[in-house]
Amino acid sequence: MEGTSRYIELAEAAVAAALPSADERPVELSAAVRYAVESGGKRIRPQICLAAAVAAGGRAEDALAAAAAIELLHSYTLVHDDLPAMDGDVERRGRPTVWKQFGETTALLAGDALQALAFRAAARSPRNAAAVVAALAEAAAGVVRGQADEFAARTAGAPPPSDDFVVRHKTADLFVAAAAMGALAAGASPADVDRLRAYALNLGLAFQYEDDLIDGDGTLPREETERRVEETTAAACAALDGLPGDAAYLRNLANRLKGRLQ
Amino acid sequence: MEGTSRYIELAEAAVAAALPSADERPVELSAAVRYAVESGGKRIRPQICLAAAVAAGGRAEDALAAAAAIELLHSYTLVHDDLPAMDGDVERRGRPTVWKQFGETTALLAGDALQALAFRAAARSPRNAAAVVAALAEAAAGVVRGQADEFAARTAGAPPPSDDFVVRHKTADLFVAAAAMGALAAGASPADVDRLRAYALNLGLAFQYEDDLIDGDGTLPREETERRVEETTAAACAALDGLPGDAAYLRNLANRLKGRLQ
Repeated sequence: MEGTSRYIELAEAAVAAALPSADERPVELSAAVRYAVESGGKRIRPQICLAAAVAAGGRAEDALAAAAAIELLHSYTLVHDDLPAMDGDVERRGRPTVWKQFGETTALLAGDALQALAFRAAARSPRNAAAVVAALAEAAAGVVRGQADEFAARTAGAPPPSDDFVVRHKTADLFVAAAAMGALAAGASPADVDRLRAYALNLGLAFQYEDDLIDGDGTLPREETERRVEETTAAACAALDGLPGDAAYLRNLANRLKGRLQ
Repeated sequence: MEGTSRYIELAEAAVAAALPSADERPVELSAAVRYAVESGGKRIRPQICLAAAVAAGGRAEDALAAAAAIELLHSYTLVHDDLPAMDGDVERRGRPTVWKQFGETTALLAGDALQALAFRAAARSPRNAAAVVAALAEAAAGVVRGQADEFAARTAGAPPPSDDFVVRHKTADLFVAAAAMGALAAGASPADVDRLRAYALNLGLAFQYEDDLIDGDGTLPREETERRVEETTAAACAALDGLPGDAAYLRNLANRLKGRLQ
Protein backbone atom coordinates (compact mmCIF):
# COMPACT_ATOMS: atom_id res chain seq x y z
CA MET A 1 0.00 0.00 0.00
CA GLU A 2 1.67 3.19 -1.20
CA GLY A 3 0.14 5.35 1.51
CA THR A 4 1.59 3.18 4.23
CA SER A 5 5.19 3.86 3.37
CA ARG A 6 4.48 7.56 2.81
CA TYR A 7 3.02 8.05 6.30
CA ILE A 8 5.82 6.05 7.87
CA GLU A 9 8.38 8.17 6.01
CA LEU A 10 6.67 11.38 7.12
CA ALA A 11 6.63 10.09 10.69
CA GLU A 12 10.31 9.14 10.60
CA ALA A 13 11.28 12.59 9.33
CA ALA A 14 9.14 14.35 11.93
CA VAL A 15 10.60 12.27 14.75
CA ALA A 16 14.15 12.85 13.52
CA ALA A 17 13.55 16.62 13.46
CA ALA A 18 12.41 16.57 17.10
CA LEU A 19 15.54 14.82 18.41
CA PRO A 20 18.77 16.38 19.72
CA SER A 21 21.69 16.23 17.29
CA ALA A 22 24.28 13.54 18.04
CA ASP A 23 26.80 16.15 19.21
CA GLU A 24 24.46 18.04 21.53
CA ARG A 25 25.92 18.23 25.02
CA PRO A 26 25.91 15.96 26.97
CA VAL A 27 26.59 13.53 24.13
CA GLU A 28 25.85 10.39 26.15
CA LEU A 29 22.31 11.62 26.82
CA SER A 30 21.79 12.61 23.18
CA ALA A 31 23.04 9.19 22.08
CA ALA A 32 20.68 7.39 24.48
CA VAL A 33 17.70 9.49 23.38
CA ARG A 34 18.43 8.81 19.71
CA TYR A 35 19.05 5.10 20.35
CA ALA A 36 15.69 4.79 22.11
CA VAL A 37 13.79 6.32 19.22
CA GLU A 38 15.75 4.75 16.35
CA SER A 39 14.81 1.29 17.47
CA GLY A 40 12.84 0.11 14.45
CA GLY A 41 9.40 0.44 15.98
CA LYS A 42 6.37 0.19 13.73
CA ARG A 43 5.43 3.86 14.23
CA ILE A 44 1.78 2.88 14.62
CA ARG A 45 0.86 5.89 16.77
CA PRO A 46 2.25 8.56 14.41
CA GLN A 47 0.58 6.74 11.50
CA ILE A 48 -2.74 7.01 13.38
CA CYS A 49 -2.04 10.69 14.01
CA LEU A 50 -1.24 11.59 10.40
CA ALA A 51 -4.10 9.49 9.01
CA ALA A 52 -6.53 11.04 11.50
CA ALA A 53 -5.64 14.49 10.17
CA VAL A 54 -6.50 13.33 6.64
CA ALA A 55 -9.66 11.50 7.74
CA ALA A 56 -10.79 14.73 9.40
CA GLY A 57 -10.49 16.50 6.06
CA GLY A 58 -7.10 18.11 6.75
CA ARG A 59 -3.53 17.54 5.62
CA ALA A 60 -1.04 15.06 7.09
CA GLU A 61 1.60 17.79 6.94
CA ASP A 62 -0.27 19.81 9.59
CA ALA A 63 0.01 16.90 12.02
CA LEU A 64 3.77 16.27 11.73
CA ALA A 65 4.65 17.88 15.07
CA ALA A 66 1.82 16.00 16.77
CA ALA A 67 2.97 12.73 15.17
CA ALA A 68 6.52 13.23 16.40
CA ALA A 69 5.22 14.09 19.86
CA ILE A 70 3.17 10.93 20.29
CA GLU A 71 6.04 8.71 19.13
CA LEU A 72 8.51 10.38 21.50
CA LEU A 73 6.08 9.94 24.36
CA HIS A 74 5.62 6.27 23.49
CA SER A 75 9.42 5.85 23.35
CA TYR A 76 9.84 7.35 26.82
CA THR A 77 7.33 4.89 28.28
CA LEU A 78 9.27 1.96 26.80
CA VAL A 79 12.60 3.24 28.14
CA HIS A 80 11.22 3.59 31.67
CA ASP A 81 9.24 0.31 31.43
CA ASP A 82 12.46 -1.57 30.72
CA LEU A 83 14.33 -0.13 33.75
CA PRO A 84 15.30 -2.53 36.55
CA ALA A 85 12.86 -0.71 38.86
CA MET A 86 10.07 -1.70 36.44
CA ASP A 87 10.34 -4.81 34.21
CA GLY A 88 14.13 -5.07 34.11
CA ASP A 89 14.14 -6.18 30.47
CA VAL A 90 17.57 -6.45 28.86
CA GLU A 91 16.49 -6.72 25.23
CA ARG A 92 13.92 -4.97 23.05
CA ARG A 93 13.45 -5.60 19.34
CA GLY A 94 16.65 -7.62 19.18
CA ARG A 95 18.92 -4.99 20.75
CA PRO A 96 19.99 -4.23 24.31
CA THR A 97 17.49 -2.02 26.10
CA VAL A 98 18.55 1.57 26.77
CA TRP A 99 19.56 0.93 30.39
CA LYS A 100 21.48 -2.18 29.38
CA GLN A 101 23.34 -0.22 26.72
CA PHE A 102 23.85 3.13 28.51
CA GLY A 103 23.39 2.35 32.20
CA GLU A 104 20.47 2.95 34.51
CA THR A 105 21.07 6.64 35.23
CA THR A 106 21.36 7.65 31.60
CA ALA A 107 18.28 5.57 30.73
CA LEU A 108 16.27 7.26 33.48
CA LEU A 109 17.34 10.67 32.20
CA ALA A 110 16.81 9.71 28.55
CA GLY A 111 13.22 8.76 29.34
CA ASP A 112 12.72 12.03 31.19
CA ALA A 113 14.21 13.93 28.24
CA LEU A 114 11.97 12.11 25.76
CA GLN A 115 8.87 13.13 27.69
CA ALA A 116 10.04 16.76 27.63
CA LEU A 117 10.89 16.58 23.92
CA ALA A 118 7.45 15.09 23.23
CA PHE A 119 5.77 18.13 24.76
CA ARG A 120 8.17 20.47 23.00
CA ALA A 121 7.18 18.91 19.68
CA ALA A 122 3.46 19.07 20.52
CA ALA A 123 3.75 22.76 21.41
CA ARG A 124 5.11 23.35 17.89
CA SER A 125 1.92 22.15 16.28
CA PRO A 126 1.05 24.86 13.75
CA ARG A 127 -2.66 24.77 14.65
CA ASN A 128 -4.46 24.33 17.99
CA ALA A 129 -1.19 23.68 19.79
CA ALA A 130 -2.73 24.09 23.24
CA ALA A 131 -5.39 21.48 22.53
CA VAL A 132 -2.80 19.14 21.01
CA VAL A 133 -0.66 19.48 24.13
CA ALA A 134 -3.67 18.96 26.39
CA ALA A 135 -4.56 15.71 24.61
CA LEU A 136 -0.96 14.51 24.95
CA ALA A 137 -0.85 15.44 28.64
CA GLU A 138 -4.05 13.51 29.41
CA ALA A 139 -2.57 10.46 27.75
CA ALA A 140 0.80 10.87 29.46
CA ALA A 141 -0.89 11.04 32.86
CA GLY A 142 -3.12 8.09 31.97
CA VAL A 143 -0.29 5.82 30.82
CA VAL A 144 1.48 6.18 34.15
CA ARG A 145 -1.73 5.33 35.99
CA GLY A 146 -2.04 2.14 33.93
CA GLN A 147 1.55 1.17 34.66
CA ALA A 148 1.21 1.89 38.36
CA ASP A 149 -2.05 -0.05 38.58
CA GLU A 150 -0.47 -3.08 36.93
CA PHE A 151 2.54 -2.82 39.23
CA ALA A 152 0.32 -2.55 42.32
CA ALA A 153 -1.52 -5.75 41.35
CA ARG A 154 1.75 -7.57 40.69
CA THR A 155 3.20 -6.48 44.03
CA ALA A 156 0.08 -7.69 45.81
CA GLY A 157 0.53 -11.08 44.13
CA ALA A 158 -2.78 -10.58 42.37
CA PRO A 159 -3.39 -11.42 38.70
CA PRO A 160 -3.43 -8.44 36.32
CA PRO A 161 -6.59 -6.41 37.08
CA SER A 162 -9.41 -8.09 35.17
CA ASP A 163 -11.22 -4.91 34.27
CA ASP A 164 -10.04 -2.81 31.35
CA PHE A 165 -8.33 -0.13 33.46
CA VAL A 166 -4.79 -1.19 32.64
CA VAL A 167 -5.47 -1.90 28.96
CA ARG A 168 -7.25 1.38 28.50
CA HIS A 169 -4.55 3.39 30.13
CA LYS A 170 -1.41 1.52 29.09
CA THR A 171 -2.31 1.10 25.44
CA ALA A 172 -5.51 2.80 24.39
CA ASP A 173 -4.72 6.20 25.94
CA LEU A 174 -1.82 6.76 23.53
CA PHE A 175 -3.87 5.56 20.54
CA VAL A 176 -6.68 7.93 21.51
CA ALA A 177 -4.25 10.81 21.96
CA ALA A 178 -2.62 10.07 18.59
CA ALA A 179 -5.96 10.29 16.81
CA ALA A 180 -7.18 13.33 18.73
CA MET A 181 -3.91 15.21 18.26
CA GLY A 182 -3.92 14.57 14.52
CA ALA A 183 -7.53 15.66 14.23
CA LEU A 184 -7.00 18.79 16.35
CA ALA A 185 -3.85 19.75 14.42
CA ALA A 186 -5.91 19.51 11.22
CA GLY A 187 -8.62 21.78 12.64
CA ALA A 188 -11.29 19.05 12.95
CA SER A 189 -14.73 19.78 14.39
CA PRO A 190 -15.39 18.53 17.95
CA ALA A 191 -17.74 15.85 16.57
CA ASP A 192 -15.05 14.56 14.22
CA VAL A 193 -12.45 14.59 17.00
CA ASP A 194 -14.85 12.44 19.01
CA ARG A 195 -15.33 10.03 16.08
CA LEU A 196 -11.58 9.61 15.80
CA ARG A 197 -11.20 9.14 19.55
CA ALA A 198 -13.79 6.37 19.43
CA TYR A 199 -11.96 4.74 16.52
CA ALA A 200 -8.66 4.82 18.38
CA LEU A 201 -10.06 3.58 21.69
CA ASN A 202 -11.49 0.53 19.97
CA LEU A 203 -8.32 0.05 17.95
CA GLY A 204 -6.25 0.18 21.13
CA LEU A 205 -8.47 -2.38 22.85
CA ALA A 206 -8.31 -4.66 19.78
CA PHE A 207 -4.53 -4.27 19.74
CA GLN A 208 -4.24 -5.35 23.35
CA TYR A 209 -6.60 -8.34 22.92
CA GLU A 210 -4.54 -9.44 19.91
CA ASP A 211 -1.38 -9.18 21.98
CA ASP A 212 -3.01 -11.39 24.59
CA LEU A 213 -3.78 -13.97 21.89
CA ILE A 214 -0.26 -13.81 20.43
CA ASP A 215 1.41 -14.02 23.85
CA GLY A 216 -1.16 -16.45 25.22
CA ASP A 217 -1.25 -14.57 28.51
CA GLY A 218 -4.74 -13.05 28.57
CA THR A 219 -7.05 -13.50 31.52
CA LEU A 220 -10.06 -14.39 29.32
CA PRO A 221 -10.82 -17.65 27.46
CA ARG A 222 -9.34 -17.65 23.94
CA GLU A 223 -12.74 -17.64 22.20
CA GLU A 224 -13.88 -14.68 24.24
CA THR A 225 -10.70 -12.77 23.39
CA GLU A 226 -11.12 -13.55 19.68
CA ARG A 227 -14.70 -12.34 19.86
CA ARG A 228 -13.55 -9.10 21.44
CA VAL A 229 -10.91 -8.55 18.73
CA GLU A 230 -13.63 -8.83 16.08
CA GLU A 231 -16.03 -6.67 18.02
CA THR A 232 -13.59 -3.85 18.79
CA THR A 233 -12.14 -3.83 15.27
CA ALA A 234 -15.66 -3.53 13.85
CA ALA A 235 -16.47 -0.77 16.33
CA ALA A 236 -13.30 1.07 15.33
CA CYS A 237 -14.24 0.97 11.66
CA ALA A 238 -17.85 1.95 12.37
CA ALA A 239 -16.68 5.04 14.25
CA LEU A 240 -15.10 6.34 11.03
CA ASP A 241 -18.49 6.77 9.33
CA GLY A 242 -19.38 10.37 8.71
CA LEU A 243 -15.85 11.78 8.66
CA PRO A 244 -15.35 14.42 5.96
CA GLY A 245 -11.94 13.13 4.75
CA ASP A 246 -10.53 9.88 3.44
CA ALA A 247 -10.55 7.29 6.24
CA ALA A 248 -9.32 4.35 4.12
CA TYR A 249 -5.91 4.40 5.75
CA LEU A 250 -7.35 4.09 9.26
CA ARG A 251 -9.70 1.32 8.12
CA ASN A 252 -6.80 -0.57 6.54
CA LEU A 253 -4.70 -0.06 9.65
CA ALA A 254 -7.37 -1.71 11.81
CA ASN A 255 -7.48 -4.68 9.46
CA ARG A 256 -3.68 -4.87 9.16
CA LEU A 257 -3.36 -4.98 12.95
CA LYS A 258 -5.97 -7.71 13.11
CA GLY A 259 -3.97 -9.49 10.40
CA ARG A 260 -1.09 -9.94 12.87
CA LEU A 261 -3.04 -12.96 14.10
CA GLN A 262 -2.85 -14.86 10.83
CA MET B 1 5.57 41.43 53.59
CA GLU B 2 1.88 40.91 52.90
CA GLY B 3 2.40 40.17 49.19
CA THR B 4 4.70 37.29 50.00
CA SER B 5 2.14 35.21 51.81
CA ARG B 6 -0.52 36.04 49.23
CA TYR B 7 1.56 34.73 46.31
CA ILE B 8 2.54 31.64 48.27
CA GLU B 9 -1.11 31.01 49.11
CA LEU B 10 -2.12 31.44 45.48
CA ALA B 11 0.65 29.07 44.44
CA GLU B 12 -0.39 26.45 47.00
CA ALA B 13 -3.98 26.55 45.83
CA ALA B 14 -2.98 26.31 42.17
CA VAL B 15 -0.70 23.36 42.85
CA ALA B 16 -3.36 21.58 44.90
CA ALA B 17 -5.88 22.00 42.07
CA ALA B 18 -3.48 20.35 39.61
CA LEU B 19 -2.96 17.19 41.70
CA PRO B 20 -4.90 13.92 41.58
CA SER B 21 -7.36 13.42 44.43
CA ALA B 22 -6.18 11.07 47.18
CA ASP B 23 -8.64 8.37 46.06
CA GLU B 24 -7.79 8.48 42.36
CA ARG B 25 -6.81 5.00 41.15
CA PRO B 26 -4.16 3.74 41.65
CA VAL B 27 -4.13 5.22 45.15
CA GLU B 28 -0.47 4.45 45.84
CA LEU B 29 0.58 6.57 42.86
CA SER B 30 -1.76 9.39 43.84
CA ALA B 31 -0.38 9.30 47.38
CA ALA B 32 3.22 9.44 46.15
CA VAL B 33 2.49 12.32 43.79
CA ARG B 34 0.78 14.29 46.56
CA TYR B 35 3.54 13.49 49.06
CA ALA B 36 6.19 14.75 46.63
CA VAL B 37 4.47 18.08 46.16
CA GLU B 38 3.27 18.62 49.73
CA SER B 39 6.81 18.61 51.01
CA GLY B 40 7.02 22.11 52.39
CA GLY B 41 9.13 23.61 49.63
CA LYS B 42 9.54 27.36 49.45
CA ARG B 43 7.54 27.63 46.20
CA ILE B 44 10.12 30.05 44.80
CA ARG B 45 9.43 29.21 41.16
CA PRO B 46 5.65 29.76 41.31
CA GLN B 47 6.28 32.98 43.23
CA ILE B 48 8.52 34.14 40.37
CA CYS B 49 5.84 33.12 37.89
CA LEU B 50 2.99 35.00 39.59
CA ALA B 51 5.12 38.06 40.30
CA ALA B 52 6.35 38.12 36.69
CA ALA B 53 2.75 38.31 35.50
CA VAL B 54 2.21 41.36 37.71
CA ALA B 55 5.53 42.97 36.77
CA ALA B 56 4.53 42.60 33.12
CA GLY B 57 1.41 44.63 33.84
CA GLY B 58 -0.97 41.67 34.10
CA ARG B 59 -2.74 39.82 36.89
CA ALA B 60 -1.31 37.05 39.07
CA GLU B 61 -4.60 35.17 38.63
CA ASP B 62 -3.88 34.68 34.93
CA ALA B 63 -0.65 32.88 35.76
CA LEU B 64 -2.05 30.35 38.24
CA ALA B 65 -1.94 27.40 35.83
CA ALA B 66 1.59 28.34 34.78
CA ALA B 67 2.66 28.63 38.43
CA ALA B 68 1.29 25.19 39.25
CA ALA B 69 3.01 23.77 36.17
CA ILE B 70 6.47 25.04 37.06
CA GLU B 71 6.20 23.76 40.64
CA LEU B 72 5.06 20.30 39.51
CA LEU B 73 7.94 20.14 37.06
CA HIS B 74 10.39 21.14 39.78
CA SER B 75 8.90 18.47 42.08
CA TYR B 76 9.37 15.77 39.46
CA THR B 77 13.06 16.65 39.07
CA LEU B 78 13.56 16.30 42.83
CA VAL B 79 11.79 12.91 42.95
CA HIS B 80 13.96 11.52 40.16
CA ASP B 81 17.14 13.19 41.50
CA ASP B 82 16.68 11.36 44.79
CA LEU B 83 16.32 7.90 43.17
CA PRO B 84 19.07 5.33 43.81
CA ALA B 85 20.02 5.50 40.12
CA MET B 86 20.78 9.21 40.67
CA ASP B 87 21.79 10.59 44.08
CA GLY B 88 20.21 7.88 46.25
CA ASP B 89 19.16 10.38 48.92
CA VAL B 90 17.00 8.96 51.70
CA GLU B 91 15.83 12.24 53.23
CA ARG B 92 14.62 15.57 51.89
CA ARG B 93 13.40 18.45 54.04
CA GLY B 94 13.36 16.25 57.12
CA ARG B 95 11.19 13.50 55.65
CA PRO B 96 11.95 10.25 53.80
CA THR B 97 12.37 10.82 50.07
CA VAL B 98 9.61 9.53 47.83
CA TRP B 99 11.46 6.34 46.86
CA LYS B 100 12.34 5.67 50.48
CA GLN B 101 8.71 6.10 51.49
CA PHE B 102 6.94 4.43 48.54
CA GLY B 103 9.61 2.29 46.87
CA GLU B 104 11.67 2.83 43.77
CA THR B 105 9.06 1.84 41.19
CA THR B 106 6.35 4.08 42.56
CA ALA B 107 8.82 6.96 42.86
CA LEU B 108 9.90 6.52 39.25
CA LEU B 109 6.26 6.55 38.14
CA ALA B 110 5.35 9.45 40.46
CA GLY B 111 8.09 11.56 38.86
CA ASP B 112 6.86 10.61 35.41
CA ALA B 113 3.31 11.48 36.43
CA LEU B 114 4.38 14.84 37.84
CA GLN B 115 6.03 15.80 34.57
CA ALA B 116 2.81 14.90 32.71
CA LEU B 117 0.67 16.80 35.22
CA ALA B 118 2.96 19.82 34.85
CA PHE B 119 2.29 19.96 31.12
CA ARG B 120 -1.41 19.35 31.67
CA ALA B 121 -1.50 22.37 33.98
CA ALA B 122 0.49 24.52 31.54
CA ALA B 123 -1.88 23.63 28.70
CA ARG B 124 -4.73 25.02 30.84
CA SER B 125 -3.21 28.48 30.91
CA PRO B 126 -6.08 30.79 29.96
CA ARG B 127 -3.88 32.88 27.67
CA ASN B 128 -1.04 31.95 25.29
CA ALA B 129 -1.14 28.34 26.43
CA ALA B 130 1.01 27.10 23.54
CA ALA B 131 3.78 29.58 24.34
CA VAL B 132 3.54 28.76 28.06
CA VAL B 133 3.90 25.06 27.26
CA ALA B 134 6.80 25.73 24.90
CA ALA B 135 8.68 27.64 27.60
CA LEU B 136 8.09 24.81 30.06
CA ALA B 137 9.23 22.20 27.53
CA GLU B 138 12.48 24.04 26.82
CA ALA B 139 13.21 24.16 30.53
CA ALA B 140 12.25 20.52 31.05
CA ALA B 141 14.62 19.43 28.29
CA GLY B 142 17.33 21.72 29.64
CA VAL B 143 17.13 20.48 33.22
CA VAL B 144 17.75 16.91 32.13
CA ARG B 145 20.77 18.02 30.11
CA GLY B 146 22.20 19.70 33.20
CA GLN B 147 21.65 16.61 35.31
CA ALA B 148 23.17 14.32 32.69
CA ASP B 149 26.18 16.59 32.25
CA GLU B 150 26.83 16.61 35.98
CA PHE B 151 26.45 12.83 36.12
CA ALA B 152 28.84 12.34 33.18
CA ALA B 153 31.50 14.42 34.94
CA ARG B 154 31.01 12.50 38.19
CA THR B 155 31.26 9.16 36.42
CA ALA B 156 34.47 10.24 34.73
CA GLY B 157 35.87 11.11 38.17
CA ALA B 158 36.14 14.73 37.06
CA PRO B 159 35.16 17.70 39.26
CA PRO B 160 31.79 19.29 38.44
CA PRO B 161 32.11 21.03 35.07
CA SER B 162 33.66 24.43 35.77
CA ASP B 163 31.69 26.30 33.15
CA ASP B 164 28.16 27.41 33.85
CA PHE B 165 26.49 24.66 31.79
CA VAL B 166 25.24 22.65 34.75
CA VAL B 167 24.19 25.68 36.80
CA ARG B 168 22.37 27.23 33.91
CA HIS B 169 20.50 24.10 33.05
CA LYS B 170 19.92 22.55 36.47
CA THR B 171 18.78 25.71 38.24
CA ALA B 172 18.45 28.72 36.00
CA ASP B 173 16.39 27.04 33.27
CA LEU B 174 13.44 26.55 35.65
CA PHE B 175 13.73 30.10 37.00
CA VAL B 176 13.76 31.47 33.45
CA ALA B 177 10.79 29.32 32.48
CA ALA B 178 8.88 30.45 35.60
CA ALA B 179 9.32 34.11 34.68
CA ALA B 180 8.64 33.63 30.98
CA MET B 181 5.53 31.54 31.61
CA GLY B 182 4.11 34.09 34.02
CA ALA B 183 4.80 36.91 31.59
CA LEU B 184 3.34 35.02 28.63
CA ALA B 185 0.24 34.03 30.59
CA ALA B 186 -0.27 37.70 31.37
CA GLY B 187 0.03 38.70 27.73
CA ALA B 188 3.38 40.47 28.06
CA SER B 189 5.15 41.98 25.06
CA PRO B 190 8.17 40.06 23.67
CA ALA B 191 10.50 42.76 25.04
CA ASP B 192 9.03 42.43 28.52
CA VAL B 193 9.21 38.62 28.36
CA ASP B 194 12.92 39.05 27.55
CA ARG B 195 13.41 41.44 30.50
CA LEU B 196 11.87 38.90 32.83
CA ARG B 197 13.94 36.07 31.35
CA ALA B 198 17.09 38.11 31.98
CA TYR B 199 15.99 38.77 35.57
CA ALA B 200 15.36 35.09 36.20
CA LEU B 201 18.57 33.87 34.58
CA ASN B 202 20.60 36.14 36.85
CA LEU B 203 18.49 35.22 39.86
CA GLY B 204 19.06 31.54 39.13
CA LEU B 205 22.81 32.01 38.84
CA ALA B 206 22.86 34.02 42.10
CA PHE B 207 20.82 31.29 43.78
CA GLN B 208 23.31 28.62 42.74
CA TYR B 209 26.34 30.68 43.80
CA GLU B 210 24.70 31.23 47.18
CA ASP B 211 24.10 27.51 47.51
CA ASP B 212 27.79 26.96 46.83
CA LEU B 213 28.66 29.39 49.63
CA ILE B 214 26.17 27.80 52.07
CA ASP B 215 27.29 24.26 51.25
CA GLY B 216 30.94 25.24 50.88
CA ASP B 217 31.27 23.03 47.81
CA GLY B 218 31.78 25.51 44.97
CA THR B 219 34.68 25.21 42.56
CA LEU B 220 35.57 28.92 42.80
CA PRO B 221 37.37 30.78 45.63
CA ARG B 222 34.93 32.10 48.23
CA GLU B 223 35.58 35.78 47.42
CA GLU B 224 34.97 35.18 43.74
CA THR B 225 31.70 33.39 44.50
CA GLU B 226 30.59 36.27 46.77
CA ARG B 227 31.44 38.76 44.05
CA ARG B 228 29.33 36.78 41.60
CA VAL B 229 26.36 36.70 43.99
CA GLU B 230 26.46 40.50 44.19
CA GLU B 231 26.95 40.90 40.48
CA THR B 232 24.16 38.54 39.39
CA THR B 233 21.70 39.89 41.98
CA ALA B 234 22.38 43.43 40.73
CA ALA B 235 21.98 42.30 37.13
CA ALA B 236 18.68 40.60 38.01
CA CYS B 237 17.31 43.81 39.54
CA ALA B 238 18.60 45.96 36.67
CA ALA B 239 16.76 43.77 34.18
CA LEU B 240 13.47 44.79 35.78
CA ASP B 241 13.82 48.42 34.67
CA GLY B 242 11.28 49.42 32.09
CA LEU B 243 8.62 46.87 32.96
CA PRO B 244 5.09 48.29 32.85
CA GLY B 245 3.88 46.65 36.09
CA ASP B 246 4.95 46.55 39.71
CA ALA B 247 8.28 44.72 39.98
CA ALA B 248 8.80 45.29 43.70
CA TYR B 249 8.02 41.70 44.56
CA LEU B 250 10.68 40.37 42.20
CA ARG B 251 13.20 42.91 43.50
CA ASN B 252 12.46 41.87 47.07
CA LEU B 253 12.71 38.21 46.15
CA ALA B 254 16.22 38.72 44.78
CA ASN B 255 17.25 40.44 47.97
CA ARG B 256 15.51 37.88 50.19
CA LEU B 257 17.37 35.06 48.43
CA LYS B 258 20.64 36.90 48.89
CA GLY B 259 19.64 37.29 52.53
CA ARG B 260 19.90 33.52 52.99
CA LEU B 261 23.61 34.12 53.45
CA GLN B 262 23.20 36.26 56.52
